[in-house]
Amino acid sequence: MKKLSKEHDHVLKTFRLLIADLCQQFNGGHPGGAIGMAAIGVALWKYVMRYAPHTPDYFNRDRFVLSNGHTCLFQYTFLYLAGYKAMTFDQLKSYHSDRIDALCPGHPEIEHEGVEVTTGPLGQGVANAVGLAMATKNLQATYNRPDFDIISNHTWCMIGDACLQEGVALEAISFAGHLKLNNLTIIYDNNQITCDGSVDLTNTEDINAKMRACGWDVIDVEDGCFDVEGIVDALNKARASTDKPTFINVRTIIGLGSAVAGNAVAHGAAFGAADVANMKKMYGFSPEEHFVVSDEVRQFFEDIPTRGQELVRAWEKKVQEYEAKYPELGAEFRRRVEGRLPDNWKELIPTIFPDKPTATRASSGLVFNPIAKECNSFMVGTADLSPSVNMMWKGKVDFQHPDLKTTCGITGNYGGRYIHYGVREHAMCAISNGLAAFAPNTFVPVTSSFFMFYLYAAPAVRMGALQHLQIIHAATHDSIGMGEDGPTHQPIELAALYRAMPNVLYIRPGDSEETAGAWIVAIEAKRTSTIISTSRHALPQLSQTRRDGVAKGAYVLEEVEDADVTLIGVGAELCFAVDVAKELQAKGAKARVISFPCQRLFEAQSLEYKRDTLRKHRLPAIVIEPYAPNGWERYANAAVCVKRFGHSLPGKEAYKFFGFEVGPMAAKIGDYLERIKADSLLRHEFVEL
Amino acid sequence: MKKLSKEHDHVLKTFRLLIADLCQQFNGGHPGGAIGMAAIGVALWKYVMRYAPHTPDYFNRDRFVLSNGHTCLFQYTFLYLAGYKAMTFDQLKSYHSDRIDALCPGHPEIEHEGVEVTTGPLGQGVANAVGLAMATKNLQATYNRPDFDIISNHTWCMIGDACLQEGVALEAISFAGHLKLNNLTIIYDNNQITCDGSVDLTNTEDINAKMRACGWDVIDVEDGCFDVEGIVDALNKARASTDKPTFINVRTIIGLGSAVAGNAVAHGAAFGAADVANMKKMYGFSPEEHFVVSDEVRQFFEDIPTRGQELVRAWEKKVQEYEAKYPELGAEFRRRVEGRLPDNWKELIPTIFPDKPTATRASSGLVFNPIAKECNSFMVGTADLSPSVNMMWKGKVDFQHPDLKTTCGITGNYGGRYIHYGVREHAMCAISNGLAAFAPNTFVPVTSSFFMFYLYAAPAVRMGALQHLQIIHAATHDSIGMGEDGPTHQPIELAALYRAMPNVLYIRPGDSEETAGAWIVAIEAKRTSTIISTSRHALPQLSQTRRDGVAKGAYVLEEVEDADVTLIGVGAELCFAVDVAKELQAKGAKARVISFPCQRLFEAQSLEYKRDTLRKHRLPAIVIEPYAPNGWERYANAAVCVKRFGHSLPGKEAYKFFGFEVGPMAAKIGDYLERIKADSLLRHEFVEL
Repeated sequence: MKKLSKEHDHVLKTFRLLIADLCQQFNGGHPGGAIGMAAIGVALWKYVMRYAPHTPDYFNRDRFVLSNGHTCLFQYTFLYLAGYKAMTFDQLKSYHSDRIDALCPGHPEIEHEGVEVTTGPLGQGVANAVGLAMATKNLQATYNRPDFDIISNHTWCMIGDACLQEGVALEAISFAGHLKLNNLTIIYDNNQITCDGSVDLTNTEDINAKMRACGWDVIDVEDGCFDVEGIVDALNKARASTDKPTFINVRTIIGLGSAVAGNAVAHGAAFGAADVANMKKMYGFSPEEHFVVSDEVRQFFEDIPTRGQELVRAWEKKVQEYEAKYPELGAEFRRRVEGRLPDNWKELIPTIFPDKPTATRASSGLVFNPIAKECNSFMVGTADLSPSVNMMWKGKVDFQHPDLKTTCGITGNYGGRYIHYGVREHAMCAISNGLAAFAPNTFVPVTSSFFMFYLYAAPAVRMGALQHLQIIHAATHDSIGMGEDGPTHQPIELAALYRAMPNVLYIRPGDSEETAGAWIVAIEAKRTSTIISTSRHALPQLSQTRRDGVAKGAYVLEEVEDADVTLIGVGAELCFAVDVAKELQAKGAKARVISFPCQRLFEAQSLEYKRDTLRKHRLPAIVIEPYAPNGWERYANAAVCVKRFGHSLPGKEAYKFFGFEVGPMAAKIGDYLERIKADSLLRHEFVEL
Repeated sequence: MKKLSKEHDHVLKTFRLLIADLCQQFNGGHPGGAIGMAAIGVALWKYVMRYAPHTPDYFNRDRFVLSNGHTCLFQYTFLYLAGYKAMTFDQLKSYHSDRIDALCPGHPEIEHEGVEVTTGPLGQGVANAVGLAMATKNLQATYNRPDFDIISNHTWCMIGDACLQEGVALEAISFAGHLKLNNLTIIYDNNQITCDGSVDLTNTEDINAKMRACGWDVIDVEDGCFDVEGIVDALNKARASTDKPTFINVRTIIGLGSAVAGNAVAHGAAFGAADVANMKKMYGFSPEEHFVVSDEVRQFFEDIPTRGQELVRAWEKKVQEYEAKYPELGAEFRRRVEGRLPDNWKELIPTIFPDKPTATRASSGLVFNPIAKECNSFMVGTADLSPSVNMMWKGKVDFQHPDLKTTCGITGNYGGRYIHYGVREHAMCAISNGLAAFAPNTFVPVTSSFFMFYLYAAPAVRMGALQHLQIIHAATHDSIGMGEDGPTHQPIELAALYRAMPNVLYIRPGDSEETAGAWIVAIEAKRTSTIISTSRHALPQLSQTRRDGVAKGAYVLEEVEDADVTLIGVGAELCFAVDVAKELQAKGAKARVISFPCQRLFEAQSLEYKRDTLRKHRLPAIVIEPYAPNGWERYANAAVCVKRFGHSLPGKEAYKFFGFEVGPMAAKIGDYLERIKADSLLRHEFVEL
């Protein structure tokens, strides 16, 4: 062990006891990891990270991600010590309290000063950090000039043993190595303990060799509990890396100093009053005193805000000079910093579309490619489905390390905005959260894959929505019309998840015009995530669809006086509703038709609008959608739907197999209208046709 | 390149042209990978795998998993050539046809002869293969005796480039290395092409070094297109491995022989008639003839069924001798082969429970631990939450390599049935699918984690349900009662997914008695997956709950004559419904109470039972559940629910924050009953209270 300075020794002891006290006060929380990481925290917040506690949103600050979010007290306590104004001592003590406006929830939350991303579900933070580092790279390539490095920040990601077991992190690690993100450092709190016991119960791989194989530099720190200088050296070496991301493997002891040090029970429970008292005695503190922060400790940290403000001033000056020298670029940079799109983005959308059958995935391209091309806020990626999702624009440049020469002859650079994520749906969406979290709306990430595989990505889509990040997910091959790929690819039940998920707009446009409406909604939703769910197969262009109707969630497509029934058409099956209405008409039943692309948008309308649109009290309504009908019961009395997994058949045959043909649907609906006449109870029960 | 025998050359050409023809006939499908893998297939089906086409369910057969399921024609064609009876030539030609009973869907499906697991979503197959290999290990440790290796099969898993990018596979690979599953081989079809182009667009890691770091042996095969002998050698070497799983890195060329060989477009589209004709000319075949299989090729494969039947006979003889020598063990083995539990399993469940507040996660332990202990069909695992999920039984032995000595002092062996999966929720569930797929109900895998993290695992839960596998997921910390962990851990919207997912029973028991009912349902559901969703916090034991009521999905807990309203209570909030009913009673409104643990079970009841239980036509019904209400609209007119993400607060305070207190709920419901008197439309609209 290297010699520990008296000053550091005292700071570390103070920090460790603070954590023990904070957990002890309400007898809960996660003390062990935070205590083990104390020296890492001192190295980061005192010596290495460039940030400004009094200007928390300083644009060029280093980003810190706590992927092992349950150790949040580690972050909260250093935010307090470093002088973040919102993190008062009272607030620090709110951890596990019943205070509703607490800044110290059980996991870090993006809404609060000094927290870059919300973490908790393990592994996510690693991918977020990759996104943050990519954001830096892209801004650097776009705006830095030889004499002006206006963007120069580093991303630091703290992880525990568990993050290295989660697939989303492993995907992101592989991708970051490929991209040679030398501005990214993972700091591994290697305490070899998780809830069940020692990590070797379940993981005995050679992690350093694995990281090297993935294209990372590896630095070992043997005495991570005390060796502040060693950690500082490692961190500085990582920041200086020229060609690879860095993995710093820091050996620590969970719950150091407590009776349960090195033991799994140190992870998720307070130590108990006796043990905490004992720690204090051992450390030369009074066992009777709690939450003790000496003047020495305050002095140790007190220069940080000043240093931070100097960074801010120097950067602002630099940006002013930059704007003077590069007025056009400077104005664009300012726009990006402020999270605005070019004013004309909406004008880039075609006002009319070719009147021929078009898959809505192709419509998505028609609508969005021109915007993606012109507006450099958009970072557009795909999980290896470029030929299917139509998100490439002419002249797109790939986001890649500039030295990369692929065997297929594609090159790119960090200024590129088209991202080949590989077959890594989950990391794609979690990385996108990092891109979006860099600064509000500076980037608008777009992801793309088959809708079904947004089930792989669901935990990250959720985290985006939870953080109010604007992420747009272009999900193609929805419904059952993609056909032959069969039940593993037919997302029967997935819409039910996304319609229920807060702050997600799940939109199924019915033709090109509605697809325009969906993208407008998505691009205007600056604090909401959107899934634009499109068809693989060609759909007719309907004359009555309206892009502004999409924004209302549902609207009347065909009104009929004295109607007998309302048909609700959705997305790829909207055209069926129109045709079934005609068929019913021919049989003497009058059907009005509603287009219903998005439930959440409709819910936001006035009661009056909803009642006028649905007319549910007077007329039975029937929804046509080859999904599990869960949730449609609110709007419809019956559904032509699918309640089992799909079937591998060509698209049209798959529709036929599940009864989605105009004739049979009209017959079923006609029959239903008769049945509710005969059975009055049925009218108010939900019927699957 | 080694010398290719004339015979192999002809077989490989025939196979490759068959694939080209099969895709060409309907101008679709995935030809490239299958064609590239031809020599691997010959090595496997002709020379290495031990199986019996005429006894497809031969218990000790080698298991083959096609993780890159889109190359299914590879498998279908070898099944045909190897003599599987169901795979007639007509059936082989059904690929991409409109034939409803096709055995050649777009991805392999478990229902069909010779297919061990359904694949398609990439990466899943790798984890399934790990589960299959674990099943073998466990049966060997349990039933093999020095003189009787009645279980000796090997698991072969074919993967493509994409499988190595997916997190679920990376989790499973790390875990398999830890377990030292020497009976598992991954065969990597390394063609360096995915949909977007060459793999180096997105992945440039050193995969061999990575696999070695994960504890795998690595064998390279440089000429995977032609070197049948080299592949056979590698496969045999892999089977002979004594201490590690093996990764065979086979270089191939996608779409070999076609004009698009080595190109991404060879992946997912037919080559076109001209190119196929050209391939034939080049190979010395007639361009006018299609689907040509010469007598020589038939003769090459024709010994396989006979060899297979010899394996079957020898094994059956061995088992008979085993049963004679070890009658008790033999009878148990027979029971396992037949997928039966001991007859007395249900008697192991307590008939009464302690009448004190008990978390249903603890109830789950009380109910299931005795069964898990006694019935060795159950393989019980957790994603590193042993202290939280209560799935350990006294005397449990861990499933581990017998040499493992962990630093926390735990040991185990392959006969153990408690599995520390690590923090790998997705792999846990995908591996469980493999365990269950070994043979019908020979194993009943149980997984456990917090309910929220079944979102990480959702793609695997789906695949289990799709394959009609009996998997039981013990999901704890449901609802918002887990408190401080906050919105990242509060599964507001997740129930909506699982209630919509076909063939999944999502059950929320309300107390210990209902938890018993949930486990009985789950254990009796031999072709269905179940999620038993339990609380972290203690719940009162209710006198009227009935375990047999759970099996009906919903039942009347408290009937009231001339009731004014029906309250629907669910799981952890069932007790609220009972208390709110009392509170309403005190205010003069009569409320009946329904316990509603499972929507899908209720849907399966008769219309009469459903109407009698709900009485929806006469009475408004109000559901109390702190989830997104999507789907409850079918049963309820209003909901005390949660429509936003959660909040970090102690459990009770979280309930309070969201309005789940008896007084306020009763007040809201009373108010609602007044409102529907005043507004007749409202009675038939769904209202969130």
